[in-house]
Amino acid sequence: MTARIIDGKAIAAELRARVADEVARVKRDHALTPGLAVVLVGHDPASEVYVRSKHTQTQAAGMASFEHKLPEDVSQADLLALIARLNRDPLVHGILVQLPLPKSLHTETIINAIDPAKDVDGLHPNNAGRLAGGLAALSPCTPLGCIILTKSVHASLEGMNAIVIGRSNLVGRPLVQLLLNENATVTIAHSRSRDLPKLCARADLVYAAVGKPEIVRGDWLKPGATVIDVGINRIPVPGGKPKLVGDVAFQEALGVAGAITPVPGGVGQMTVACLLVNTLRAACAIAGLPVPAV
Amino acid sequence: MTARIIDGKAIAAELRARVADEVARVKRDHALTPGLAVVLVGHDPASEVYVRSKHTQTQAAGMASFEHKLPEDVSQADLLALIARLNRDPLVHGILVQLPLPKSLHTETIINAIDPAKDVDGLHPNNAGRLAGGLAALSPCTPLGCIILTKSVHASLEGMNAIVIGRSNLVGRPLVQLLLNENATVTIAHSRSRDLPKLCARADLVYAAVGKPEIVRGDWLKPGATVIDVGINRIPVPGGKPKLVGDVAFQEALGVAGAITPVPGGVGQMTVACLLVNTLRAACAIAGLPVPAV
Repeated sequence: MTARIIDGKAIAAELRARVADEVARVKRDHALTPGLAVVLVGHDPASEVYVRSKHTQTQAAGMASFEHKLPEDVSQADLLALIARLNRDPLVHGILVQLPLPKSLHTETIINAIDPAKDVDGLHPNNAGRLAGGLAALSPCTPLGCIILTKSVHASLEGMNAIVIGRSNLVGRPLVQLLLNENATVTIAHSRSRDLPKLCARADLVYAAVGKPEIVRGDWLKPGATVIDVGINRIPVPGGKPKLVGDVAFQEALGVAGAITPVPGGVGQMTVACLLVNTLRAACAIAGLPVPAV
Repeated sequence: MTARIIDGKAIAAELRARVADEVARVKRDHALTPGLAVVLVGHDPASEVYVRSKHTQTQAAGMASFEHKLPEDVSQADLLALIARLNRDPLVHGILVQLPLPKSLHTETIINAIDPAKDVDGLHPNNAGRLAGGLAALSPCTPLGCIILTKSVHASLEGMNAIVIGRSNLVGRPLVQLLLNENATVTIAHSRSRDLPKLCARADLVYAAVGKPEIVRGDWLKPGATVIDVGINRIPVPGGKPKLVGDVAFQEALGVAGAITPVPGGVGQMTVACLLVNTLRAACAIAGLPVPAV
């Protein structure tokens, strides 16, 4: 058996198209143009690439895109003042502060200053708490993408055994909540877990989000399992460009899994598309409109 | 083998004594008297019993206890005004609104109005979110009690396989977070889970929090497992007083488990003691003092 490869690129493109349709609809019917403000501090090259991509995709979806680029040495007070202004700005429905921030800034304080209704990264404790409590919430984009990819394979996740490997605030922990909302039975494993292969072997759905290259091996998997690989690890290649690999040994897994996301071309493709989803949802919620399903 | 019975009553009494010692210390060293305000709306007989017990135990621990009893038909505005006053009151470090509230009041709005720093029930989304994010937080009392009871058997839970059956906001969901903080591997199961006996059979730690009488059977358990029974179910007895049983078939489990909490006399005993712990912690945090471990 060879696993079906889940095409993140195509699924993300479809999702962006559905968002664009909804944006056109709320513009037409409610004169509402969802707006996303992205704040970038300093000149981290990877962050600059991400921000550019967010900008392009936001505009392509018909939304307003606001970029705020601040110098590396911006004071915390000035950054907080900008966030306060964006919180009040009626044209801005989503605020994203690109992480990581320079060490001189206190990330938690910055994130907590964002109006939870505009927190499209889903990082404010209020959103994390609402998500953990099963309430309507803006959830982080990467786990949201993981769910959408899984649902491209399984219409319903109800009663399926899922394992989430990794308990980060950005991915593992919110993913557990989203899987519970889908009525999956969820196991959360991590660096202190014993006998990870055995824990994996009983899972219908495997989410690898540890950030260790190819830690999940093919023979860990239950035959037919759906494997969602969140890891993006850069492996140096002597004399060449670094190679990108996931947290799953892809070639091994291909022969065992039922469906699997590639790296690159899997989860990574979904993150910005889900950011657009969150911005659209935030705009509708703030305007008192029904939140579209997309 | 007969399981060791975990004596909730004795463990709660020890915990209350440790809290009382710490209260005496912060009074002496910092002139700080932790204060707990309990708000009761209406005349639910069970709620009145709980509130009385909280009052007595708060005073016995040397803390200040403030009771606010409001009529069944109190307006939401008046209740919110009281909460705003308690939020500002420097003598009050913990605020607990006894649930359930009458249907005329919107529970979520009321809970969200409590200052998260004084939310000793751990129900505010901000606390749930901080807990879900692995940050310092006031966590709900019953799951906190479950952890303390487990640690009376196992000094460390690291790497142990735990199953939490039930995903309520009050117990199951926060318990998952507390178990993760203890580095356990956690599975969360619920009414939609398939093959619950099999899921249970591999767990070193079983937490039953579904509210269904004796749903967890003895032959579901891994021999030697530690079983924490959160359920309190009232079973009618023809011609007699209703009998209290847990979510675990206690007599069956006795022959398989390594350790088990009885019902009554187990988890139920811990809840008010943990409320005192939270009030002490909140008082110290608000005063800028180190938060005692107790």
